Amino acid sequence: MPKAVCLLSGGLDSTTCLALARREGFDCYALSFDYGQRHRVELEAAARVALALGAAEHRVVCIDLRLFGGSALTAGIEVPKHREVEEMGQGIPITYVPARNTIFLSFALAWAEVLEAGDVFIGVNAIDYSGYPDCRPEYIAAFERMANLATRAGVEGRTRLRIHTPLARLSKAGIVKLGQSVGVDFGLTHSCYDPDAQGRPCGACDSCLLRRKGFEEAGLRDPLQGGGG
Amino acid sequence: MPKAVCLLSGGLDSTTCLALARREGFDCYALSFDYGQRHRVELEAAARVALALGAAEHRVVCIDLRLFGGSALTAGIEVPKHREVEEMGQGIPITYVPARNTIFLSFALAWAEVLEAGDVFIGVNAIDYSGYPDCRPEYIAAFERMANLATRAGVEGRTRLRIHTPLARLSKAGIVKLGQSVGVDFGLTHSCYDPDAQGRPCGACDSCLLRRKGFEEAGLRDPLQGGGG
Repeated sequence: MPKAVCLLSGGLDSTTCLALARREGFDCYALSFDYGQRHRVELEAAARVALALGAAEHRVVCIDLRLFGGSALTAGIEVPKHREVEEMGQGIPITYVPARNTIFLSFALAWAEVLEAGDVFIGVNAIDYSGYPDCRPEYIAAFERMANLATRAGVEGRTRLRIHTPLARLSKAGIVKLGQSVGVDFGLTHSCYDPDAQGRPCGACDSCLLRRKGFEEAGLRDPLQGGGG
Repeated sequence: MPKAVCLLSGGLDSTTCLALARREGFDCYALSFDYGQRHRVELEAAARVALALGAAEHRVVCIDLRLFGGSALTAGIEVPKHREVEEMGQGIPITYVPARNTIFLSFALAWAEVLEAGDVFIGVNAIDYSGYPDCRPEYIAAFERMANLATRAGVEGRTRLRIHTPLARLSKAGIVKLGQSVGVDFGLTHSCYDPDAQGRPCGACDSCLLRRKGFEEAGLRDPLQGGGG
């Protein structure tokens, strides 16, 4: 089986993305990051998902993005609540973490080089790239081009690295339907930006609201308790 | 003064690069990495150099590249000794760390975004890019292009990020001469891949041998004791 490195946050999108990579026949090496996010729930979800979907390995890389500040997800800034979906689509949200996907994909590239894997999966999607610069298709294409000049394998022409973004053009409802069709257990995932001490979703942050809307539009029930998250 | 993020290992090249950035009038934010290298001497040299050259700040990001294995610099593989310079130029050396410059530049990009800096300096050079894929000009150009699609500033058209590689086309002797001309104190730097317990250079690894050859060809004396390093 060909090997693929799969970025995995434990959310709806990266979980569906990993399930698709498995379905396509890849031996999957799941990669998560402990980057000083407010809660450990996300990493616990990633570990559950990697196990459930039969990843060959799951590794967590610790990096301190708080060093760079500038985001509600890492710098102690309050996460916005109860926003309209239309409002979320305007401008880059405060939950944006500077250069996050570039850093994540760089580590994926390093691991892919060591594994001699030619494929990397990342669950960026249509909802994200309305707001986050590093979720846009032109960004991903530029990263792929750079990556193919960056490595030993690229120089020696042995492996051409491909960055797969199977969710790029899907809505959240589309991702929910697709995840369901490939057998994702959504009860294992975690989406909330601001869970309570027990890890329960707040139901009011952008991520919870988008998730709720996705399940509603897909006509499916979210197995997670406590609202949208 | 415009701000620049300067990658700084504390070696001959990155030190000269930082001195050039200062000379060009940049307010310099020096960035080093603790990536599980065998010795702390390198980070101590970086701190000395940042101070001596008047960097506005010096930060050290801790990342565990050993996770990915595959290099003599991080994985406990023996560093090659007493090689001929011609031999070093053939193929990618075992001291290559997978995707290292991509990871380093990604963190520089994150910090530049937070600082609203439009400039990043990296001391890649002609000697390096004969062996390391991620020191080549075409790689740097591809990274710059990707970086300008990756960030909030890039999307909003506020700042165009430029990656400066002032040493790209210089030999080691050329770098020594240039460093001398901008007042670099080479006694503060550290180049050896395999120093002894007291931090003294081995004099026999590729880095020591290239450094010695550089000083010899430049007709200058290396202030570091104990041979080439």
